Amino acid sequence: MADASLSIVRDATGRSREAENPQSPLVRFGPEKPLRLDAGIDLTPFQIAYQTYGELNAERSNAVLICHALTGDQHVANVHPVTGKPGWWETMVGPGRPIDTQRYFVISPNVVGACMGTTGPSSINPATGEPWGLNFPVITIRDMVRAQAMLLDHLGVPSLFAIAGGSMGGMQVLQWAASYPERVFAALPIAASTRHSAQNIAFHEVGRQAVMADPDWRGGRYQLEGTNPHRGLAVARMGAHITYLSDAALHRKFGRRLQDRSNPTFSFDADFQVENYLRHQGISFVERFDANSYLYLTRAMDYFDLTADYGGVLAQAFHGTRTRFCVVSFTSDWLFPTAESRAIVHALNAASAPVSFAEIETDKGHDAFLLEEPELFAIVRGFLEGAGRLRGLKPGKS
Amino acid sequence: MADASLSIVRDATGRSREAENPQSPLVRFGPEKPLRLDAGIDLTPFQIAYQTYGELNAERSNAVLICHALTGDQHVANVHPVTGKPGWWETMVGPGRPIDTQRYFVISPNVVGACMGTTGPSSINPATGEPWGLNFPVITIRDMVRAQAMLLDHLGVPSLFAIAGGSMGGMQVLQWAASYPERVFAALPIAASTRHSAQNIAFHEVGRQAVMADPDWRGGRYQLEGTNPHRGLAVARMGAHITYLSDAALHRKFGRRLQDRSNPTFSFDADFQVENYLRHQGISFVERFDANSYLYLTRAMDYFDLTADYGGVLAQAFHGTRTRFCVVSFTSDWLFPTAESRAIVHALNAASAPVSFAEIETDKGHDAFLLEEPELFAIVRGFLEGAGRLRGLKPGKS
Repeated sequence: MADASLSIVRDATGRSREAENPQSPLVRFGPEKPLRLDAGIDLTPFQIAYQTYGELNAERSNAVLICHALTGDQHVANVHPVTGKPGWWETMVGPGRPIDTQRYFVISPNVVGACMGTTGPSSINPATGEPWGLNFPVITIRDMVRAQAMLLDHLGVPSLFAIAGGSMGGMQVLQWAASYPERVFAALPIAASTRHSAQNIAFHEVGRQAVMADPDWRGGRYQLEGTNPHRGLAVARMGAHITYLSDAALHRKFGRRLQDRSNPTFSFDADFQVENYLRHQGISFVERFDANSYLYLTRAMDYFDLTADYGGVLAQAFHGTRTRFCVVSFTSDWLFPTAESRAIVHALNAASAPVSFAEIETDKGHDAFLLEEPELFAIVRGFLEGAGRLRGLKPGKS
Repeated sequence: MADASLSIVRDATGRSREAENPQSPLVRFGPEKPLRLDAGIDLTPFQIAYQTYGELNAERSNAVLICHALTGDQHVANVHPVTGKPGWWETMVGPGRPIDTQRYFVISPNVVGACMGTTGPSSINPATGEPWGLNFPVITIRDMVRAQAMLLDHLGVPSLFAIAGGSMGGMQVLQWAASYPERVFAALPIAASTRHSAQNIAFHEVGRQAVMADPDWRGGRYQLEGTNPHRGLAVARMGAHITYLSDAALHRKFGRRLQDRSNPTFSFDADFQVENYLRHQGISFVERFDANSYLYLTRAMDYFDLTADYGGVLAQAFHGTRTRFCVVSFTSDWLFPTAESRAIVHALNAASAPVSFAEIETDKGHDAFLLEEPELFAIVRGFLEGAGRLRGLKPGKS
């Protein structure tokens, strides 16, 4: 039974360092510039860590904002400072890539509530000198977007040529288009929805309970008490990870194949490849992510309901918009199924907004937006090139 | 944050009592009758707890075996001794019900590895005088069926008129039909499959890791050490419960409705009804179920692969069978989707076995087999009546 349960050897040094003093540019907003939260609280002071790629042109018209997903961060197209792995969207963002950094000025901030340098529950609460923990206010997708708008002001970027993101990133894209339509020329929500479904809230709640059930969570005060709920967080990640894939992809990748053995061991060892893979996902996640941030960001997604914010009529969220949209979904995504994207398209149609819609055929599930998906690359490239012509951007070199 | 995490007040007295001295008839098999396990071990001594309803006729031709699912037990149609709730299939089994106890002699055993009186990991290992814990051998669906065959021998039931079960119960039905074709006249596998999919193994593995991540699990020795991994088990149950329902059912039942409040609290309380419901599912489950049994029974399902047992050709499992089958699936069941049932039907067709197939239109998901589903009741009643005529059973009173 030696390897029946998760063996996690944790070194939180790298992650803790990044939370306070990230290896990213940083902007600190003092008491004169609080972040007004939907919870009715002013978060102040607070800081945003971000990365940029490429250069802002003289007209300040080529900025592209990348919004990351639940477990993503600002390290879109550079080596990750904690894991040493490539950025999470290096296939999409870079010189000659669909989001071409030779052409566009790409900005990617870490969201409020996260743990890679932007203020979140693992940051120090200046009022107490201790980590915020559960005293950190519950934040929303709109709060994240409000903070990003302050970052753009700080960077001298009056408006965005484009904004793109998948999953929770797509929620931010939609919120941006609704909150600041005059600042968004083109919007690319990928594998997104305008309201989190009951099933998705349910999955998130299981993940949160997995974290909170870990005695090392200590009511969220684990940093102070020198513990870490890494087992609970790993379990949360394992469960969530299944929802990012698809039955077909798991069957194709693993099926019922055994891991390094020819017969089942009649034990709780990771006999099956899929078990081994999932354990690896859980273990590697806790190296780079903060448990309380996981609670706060899942909660922000649960609370997201753009339809309710606009009196139950989604089209009202986009009333009079001049932003052009490209909505993308994946056939095998059962977490944010195509029907959710279609509802966005219908609302945009009702609001007379220019919109194109692509449902990409793939068995890769929700995570397809992060993976090698040539059709997605072609769509993003084409949409941005078309929008670039309308915007009067110089053509790319390719 | 008072009610952010699960508040579990546990009284394990009732459950512990049932494991050793159940309020059910019991048969004990001594050293002369070991249970030969697929793991290559003889389990001895061992006991089976079971319930019966109705009476065996003089011809001994009216016996119906009910096989329970992962978290079910023998209490099909009587008040549950631990929870005080009705039996799990009272809508299906009883006087005048589709499985009519005025007509059939219904036998429902607790499976090997479970915790309601049949030998399992919470039973006392006679070699040590301590609970088996993880020293209990890993068991399979075939082991469960082998034990049930011994129970039938003991009860003087040479063959079954019918056998029925859903989910893991359906796996037992299929294994019975494959292992003892001459003892099964009619078989009703509901929402079942012949091999557990990669995605299902993955979900099970998350549940097991949730249990094992609970420090109170103590390497499976929690009974000896006076602890109980109830938090881990509750999390496992919450995650699994989502997979038993459907996106549509969760949307219909809960949507994004709030629980006893008109606005979100900006906290980790169970704001949403679906959160409250899931927490209740987790908390109530641990009152009646043993954590190690959860590990063993999920493992048995993972190992189930009738196709592999018959050289990769499923039809071989049913070669020459004279059993008649009624295969039932539910449109919204994504855990054991219709395609799995269709594969069973194709194999039975290839084996020239008489089979009818019903895919029932419902949004209730996998758990539809446990719920008020009139079409299912009509199908089961009709199938058994038709089989009863062939078997020469007296017509029912209704």
